[in-house]
Amino acid sequence: MTAAILPSYVGDAWWAPATDPDAAVVRDASTGEAVAAVSTRGLDVEAVLQHARTAGQQSLGALTFHQRAVLLKQFAIELTAHKEELYELSARSGSTRRDSLNDIDGGIGVLFTYSSKGRREMPNSQVYLDGAIEPLSKDGSFLGRHIYTRLPGAAVQINAFNFPMWGALEKFAPAFLAGVPSIVKPATPTAYVAEAWVRILVDSGLLPAGSLQLISGGVQDLLGRVGLGDTVGFTGSATTAARLRAQVDPAVRFTSETDSINASVLAPDAVAGTPEFDAYVRQLMVELTTKAGQKCTAIRRAIVPAGSRDELVAALQASITARVVIGDPRAEGVTLGPLVSVAQRDEVLHQVGVLQDAGGTLLIGSTERPEVTRADGTVGAADDGAFLSPIVIGFDGAAPAAAHEVEAFGPVTSVLTYSSLAEAAELVGRGGGSLVTSVATHDPQTAAELITRIGAFNGRVLFLDRDDARSSTGHGAPVPHLVHGGPGRAGGGEELGGIRAVLHYMQRTAVQGSPRMLTAITGVWHAGADADATGMHPFRKSLAELRIGDRVDSAEREVTLADIETFAHFTGDTFYAHMDEAAAAANPFFPGRVAHGYLLVSWAAGLFVDPAPGPVLANSGLENLRFITPVSPGDRIRVALTAKQITPRETDEYGEVRWDAVIRNERDEVVAEYDVLTLVAKELAPADASSTTGAAA
Amino acid sequence: MTAAILPSYVGDAWWAPATDPDAAVVRDASTGEAVAAVSTRGLDVEAVLQHARTAGQQSLGALTFHQRAVLLKQFAIELTAHKEELYELSARSGSTRRDSLNDIDGGIGVLFTYSSKGRREMPNSQVYLDGAIEPLSKDGSFLGRHIYTRLPGAAVQINAFNFPMWGALEKFAPAFLAGVPSIVKPATPTAYVAEAWVRILVDSGLLPAGSLQLISGGVQDLLGRVGLGDTVGFTGSATTAARLRAQVDPAVRFTSETDSINASVLAPDAVAGTPEFDAYVRQLMVELTTKAGQKCTAIRRAIVPAGSRDELVAALQASITARVVIGDPRAEGVTLGPLVSVAQRDEVLHQVGVLQDAGGTLLIGSTERPEVTRADGTVGAADDGAFLSPIVIGFDGAAPAAAHEVEAFGPVTSVLTYSSLAEAAELVGRGGGSLVTSVATHDPQTAAELITRIGAFNGRVLFLDRDDARSSTGHGAPVPHLVHGGPGRAGGGEELGGIRAVLHYMQRTAVQGSPRMLTAITGVWHAGADADATGMHPFRKSLAELRIGDRVDSAEREVTLADIETFAHFTGDTFYAHMDEAAAAANPFFPGRVAHGYLLVSWAAGLFVDPAPGPVLANSGLENLRFITPVSPGDRIRVALTAKQITPRETDEYGEVRWDAVIRNERDEVVAEYDVLTLVAKELAPADASSTTGAAA
Repeated sequence: MTAAILPSYVGDAWWAPATDPDAAVVRDASTGEAVAAVSTRGLDVEAVLQHARTAGQQSLGALTFHQRAVLLKQFAIELTAHKEELYELSARSGSTRRDSLNDIDGGIGVLFTYSSKGRREMPNSQVYLDGAIEPLSKDGSFLGRHIYTRLPGAAVQINAFNFPMWGALEKFAPAFLAGVPSIVKPATPTAYVAEAWVRILVDSGLLPAGSLQLISGGVQDLLGRVGLGDTVGFTGSATTAARLRAQVDPAVRFTSETDSINASVLAPDAVAGTPEFDAYVRQLMVELTTKAGQKCTAIRRAIVPAGSRDELVAALQASITARVVIGDPRAEGVTLGPLVSVAQRDEVLHQVGVLQDAGGTLLIGSTERPEVTRADGTVGAADDGAFLSPIVIGFDGAAPAAAHEVEAFGPVTSVLTYSSLAEAAELVGRGGGSLVTSVATHDPQTAAELITRIGAFNGRVLFLDRDDARSSTGHGAPVPHLVHGGPGRAGGGEELGGIRAVLHYMQRTAVQGSPRMLTAITGVWHAGADADATGMHPFRKSLAELRIGDRVDSAEREVTLADIETFAHFTGDTFYAHMDEAAAAANPFFPGRVAHGYLLVSWAAGLFVDPAPGPVLANSGLENLRFITPVSPGDRIRVALTAKQITPRETDEYGEVRWDAVIRNERDEVVAEYDVLTLVAKELAPADASSTTGAAA
Repeated sequence: MTAAILPSYVGDAWWAPATDPDAAVVRDASTGEAVAAVSTRGLDVEAVLQHARTAGQQSLGALTFHQRAVLLKQFAIELTAHKEELYELSARSGSTRRDSLNDIDGGIGVLFTYSSKGRREMPNSQVYLDGAIEPLSKDGSFLGRHIYTRLPGAAVQINAFNFPMWGALEKFAPAFLAGVPSIVKPATPTAYVAEAWVRILVDSGLLPAGSLQLISGGVQDLLGRVGLGDTVGFTGSATTAARLRAQVDPAVRFTSETDSINASVLAPDAVAGTPEFDAYVRQLMVELTTKAGQKCTAIRRAIVPAGSRDELVAALQASITARVVIGDPRAEGVTLGPLVSVAQRDEVLHQVGVLQDAGGTLLIGSTERPEVTRADGTVGAADDGAFLSPIVIGFDGAAPAAAHEVEAFGPVTSVLTYSSLAEAAELVGRGGGSLVTSVATHDPQTAAELITRIGAFNGRVLFLDRDDARSSTGHGAPVPHLVHGGPGRAGGGEELGGIRAVLHYMQRTAVQGSPRMLTAITGVWHAGADADATGMHPFRKSLAELRIGDRVDSAEREVTLADIETFAHFTGDTFYAHMDEAAAAANPFFPGRVAHGYLLVSWAAGLFVDPAPGPVLANSGLENLRFITPVSPGDRIRVALTAKQITPRETDEYGEVRWDAVIRNERDEVVAEYDVLTLVAKELAPADASSTTGAAA
């Protein structure tokens, strides 16, 4: 055996079997040279699981969402600093520089996005709120609310070979943000790339204990050991997913993302000569060749109007001729690398045979070994490399079931034809559920009609037209902001999609109780809970001093007709409901002339604001404003402002404070309700401190 | 055979087998008298499925969310009008009037709630938006967004015997609102109640074709016939759930809600003499006796401080003695009816035996046949009825596994003891996942600590204290606003929870495209899509005329220092950032004195408003306001207001229009962004029409 056994990272230490004559040998995809051996013989998987559940849960449980998010950014920065080593390793798996960009920079991008979203879209605490308050009693003493708390176990993540970094990080990042430790199991053919990025993170010293473990090889009976509170996330083939799912206790959340027979539809309006036709061909070309077609999101079915098929195939052939250079990705100019292994290539050729037997004809490409460019620039036969030329298979008339069901996981696509939009939609659905379908159209009606027909069969649908052809992230590229995963054949799971993926590692619980209890549980003040208006004006308190429930109850102020007229003329808002008694009274909502809503909100600010410099730095916004009771001349308004949620920023000297604002009239009716958003300093500046003293004096 | 075969409602017609000697005979729970026979021998289940997928999908697909919601309310009104017939039937299953309230009024309440939420929380269209816009390109030409579209199949709903109306309607209502036709399969022992409510709806003539079918008996091989786009929802035992799940194609969403070993914790602070202790005893009593304990949410484990156990048992015994009258629910004064059948009673007695064998001792009650009150008021032995007295089983010291795993589905609860809060939490978790846990505590710290320990094991957690003891809806009562379902042993599914349940019948899809395409697909205007500022002022257009993208581009207006001072003195908002140049410049966010945010928003209204009476009736609110660039004296602002979303109300003469508002300065920087909410008439009033003519002249 020429290669060392790749170590695992378990129990916060590197470990490898001393020796294993049966270890799998992983070879360079272009040259066949041995790169690494893979084995976990003798690994104590129960200890791995327990380490996650104890040390991992404990270390992550000590951090808030924002603190975890900050670490994700630091991980991203560390990996960025070591990108070149990763690129070199990635090339050994057959990836061109451009292919590696998806995996390496794409993976780093996931970390950056989750770091940013975690801080912008989650509270700086450990309980995440879902949806609005549900009043469950008339007197407001009993409320309902949905919260998410993290799962108490380990997140077992079983990844595919094609994206050893992105594919792992897109599971790891949301689990980490949720506070759940990950056990990462890479696929054997590219396990050395996973080992490399894990090593970079380990060496950074930034990883909380037990938060990340790596099993570089078989997981033995791990899946039989997981239980309620653990999760299993799998990416790979549908058959493997079914086999693994059967091993797992039904109490465990099992998510799978499996390769699907994705479609790309050329709409009737996107005839040759339109920008949409050209964009469609370019996209098809990219999907056919990127990562040598080894992408679960690649286009397997080009669904085109019967009349456009020949033009499409000709345009695609021209593009391939002009752009495809097959060879070792380390050679200059190569645009299409080998498949990950010779075994993988042979499997793809087998599936191409199945498609041909089902009636498909080879429109472009060949199943023969192509001429390739070697690393030294010479051109010749493909020797030990796993090379394959791009293959396009055509089906005449009604395509057989195989065209919708057989996946050749390489640079292979089928071309199917349709004669009506309804038929195109039906063909999309025959894939049995896909990760993604793209549609080239510039016709909004076509888009609107198609989405209601194909939405339910797809996790993602991309509309390509002249407006977004240049800015599109592409059919095959999941983005961390959007859900990745699809129904049916695609596995039925969801990953990514921003915070949605974090919630997969948390439990949603409906909580019922009094406002006081819900305030304690959520860290967000609920109307009816204790409030304190007796102390210093809350605008004089820094985040260090301010508490949820701190309140200012304003004085009353009477609204006169003169005020309304002054405001109308000052703002220019002379809407008749403010200016014309008869017309206002004829309006179904007003008793007569009423004050402007904006007057009320502006006055409320005047009533609650504390004008001198202090810790409150700015009013950054306002949310959920509802005008409830109109205010007539002679009415008197007052406002209660209560600190509702406090979100200190980890990396700034200030944070957000959300205030609950309620304006009432002299009859105690609610006039308006809203949230005021402010930025507030963490600590008092010396000047503030003196002014505090002044205020208290 | 003395009872007729209960008909099924399939293909929009009533159907029953002519005869079936093997039909199950359902008996009155109190008297043993035959009520109905149940059989579907010869039913063509494939036709049922196809009818849902074709006629049902078509009829519901013609309606918007709001139109479906209005129908749900009409269904609720019909059922309310026929409540007494339902109560009479329900009594035959052993339900007291109070038990039936949960089932019948509870079921009607679900319809009302979904009708209301459907109109308040969903658009009046067919595509539901999830979350915010995700910008995916710097130039704004490529966006991402998540949408939900309905599943294209049938919703198969397999219900439990205990709530033949509520249990069915809580699945039917959200499916109907989503636009997915239901196939309802009631449990045999109470199938006659389901038949009754379905008949009331059928007779009302309100049901869209194929939207509801009822299979009164076995579903034959129906579960083997469902596929991608169909759903199966099951309520019942965990073992049946596992058996059914195995029959269903993995591409089908299978949700199960199974009985769980729910806990109720008496916290350390809730000692005897506190209002929390009393509330705990009252709740335990309710859960023990309601529906004779045949509730998946009933308390099976009372988890109490070791030192409080004896007081608790004594208080519970006193309450039982004072309040429990066992008998035929048609008899005056009966508070505890029989179980649904003799077989069910025998099963409960068997499980009580298992708990006793595991070390449990009978603290309250007896396994002997109780004395019962008959319908005629006489008292005597329980003859043919399925009666059982309330049973409380105690476990000393560490409770055995059986106490956490064995469910006696009747008026039976165990009492377990703990010595620390951590131990109480651990005991809750040993249930392996529950629908609900309640906690009696008045201590916010206890509540906050417990929720992070037990949240992940529960679908719902109720906090009971002196503040909500009277208003609480109760441990055992799911409410339509909140999720019902729990992890692990509880089935792992979710039902109810307002719109969350509607989405279970829809597919979430990430959509990518240009703003123009996203506008067409979602019906909501996206910045960058076509906008039309050339026509009549959009405030002069009724909902009949207004189109998404109609816009008003305002004139510019300069903000002077005098304006800022005027506004400050008028509103009273003399915050230093507006009034003191040096102090403002020292603020990290402001270049010097700046205009009030509320001044800008008020002026914007003045700039875009069209003052004369017209179809725009009122400004009802404002959302998502963010102040982005400060405005200094001398800056000039203008506003663009674009019709973003139009939501006509089905039952009013007006609807909501949401406007996209963007304030910019003279350098074209965005100063503020927000949504303005207005109420707009569907049609022009005669007066408006003349004023329109005036405006156009």
